[in-house]
Amino acid sequence: MTDLEGLAIDNRLDLVLERWVDVPPELVWAAWTEPRHLTRWFTPAPYTTPECQVDLRPGGRFRVVMRSPDGQETATEGCYLEVTPARRLIWTGALGPGYRPAPALESETDFPFTAVIALAPQGGGTSYTAVAMHRDPDDRAKHEAMGFHDGWGKALDQLVALMRGASAGQG
Amino acid sequence: MTDLEGLAIDNRLDLVLERWVDVPPELVWAAWTEPRHLTRWFTPAPYTTPECQVDLRPGGRFRVVMRSPDGQETATEGCYLEVTPARRLIWTGALGPGYRPAPALESETDFPFTAVIALAPQGGGTSYTAVAMHRDPDDRAKHEAMGFHDGWGKALDQLVALMRGASAGQG
Repeated sequence: MTDLEGLAIDNRLDLVLERWVDVPPELVWAAWTEPRHLTRWFTPAPYTTPECQVDLRPGGRFRVVMRSPDGQETATEGCYLEVTPARRLIWTGALGPGYRPAPALESETDFPFTAVIALAPQGGGTSYTAVAMHRDPDDRAKHEAMGFHDGWGKALDQLVALMRGASAGQG
Repeated sequence: MTDLEGLAIDNRLDLVLERWVDVPPELVWAAWTEPRHLTRWFTPAPYTTPECQVDLRPGGRFRVVMRSPDGQETATEGCYLEVTPARRLIWTGALGPGYRPAPALESETDFPFTAVIALAPQGGGTSYTAVAMHRDPDDRAKHEAMGFHDGWGKALDQLVALMRGASAGQG
């Protein structure tokens, strides 16, 4: 069981992806927290992640640049809230680095969310839970319509393929 | 020296109140974190604080109800981010309990801020630093115009008077 204690996951507000993956929690953690890995799996192909910054502590910066197939780049920035190695990673787009409230959003299609990645060892692999927590049902619906499950699922497939390769390379 | 490490205090964006107070850090901490104390000093008179909730852990709820002299009540809610006893307390209005992004703001005069209370022992009392961190210079200006320095200073005077009484009662 992954650990969602102290949170208040709500099906009317949140989106959840639960999977078992054939990679141990330590490698899933490395994939989520080391830029050399993140840039290779974070964005579902054909989008890419040319750049990211990880200041892995509560209050630290998490910044990712995503590039579309036609070369357009979008940066997203957030703040880590909880860093529990191989168990739980939480960050939010509602805050920037150092816990400063994020700038007011400029478009209707933009919304803040808080992300939780919860990991637990299971059967030689990992019980993996990703949660996106929203302000209200509208933001949840927007995020779902933008393809949350497909996008996060495809990225996770990429993570698994990458880290199984890394694991084999180490073995 | 109070500890502002890992934050990025910025004079263009933030408001800071620095004082030395004749109460040791442990009692200032108690005043900030125990509802029985908070309800007696938090709001500058003649406003009062009839009610508050403190779930003192990162991700926990901080909720305060303030009452105006004519009986109008306003509740504000935030989320604790860092809880380091007698040293540093951080919470934000940009998130609600469990790190969920706070509801979209309904008025122009409302804005999220992150608050830092940093304490250090000094000369038998406490070096006290309170910081309000804002999204942008406009929010800083609004908060200053609303009377940040006077309000937080007056509340701190109330805290000191209360806890010196509590301290004398214990001694």
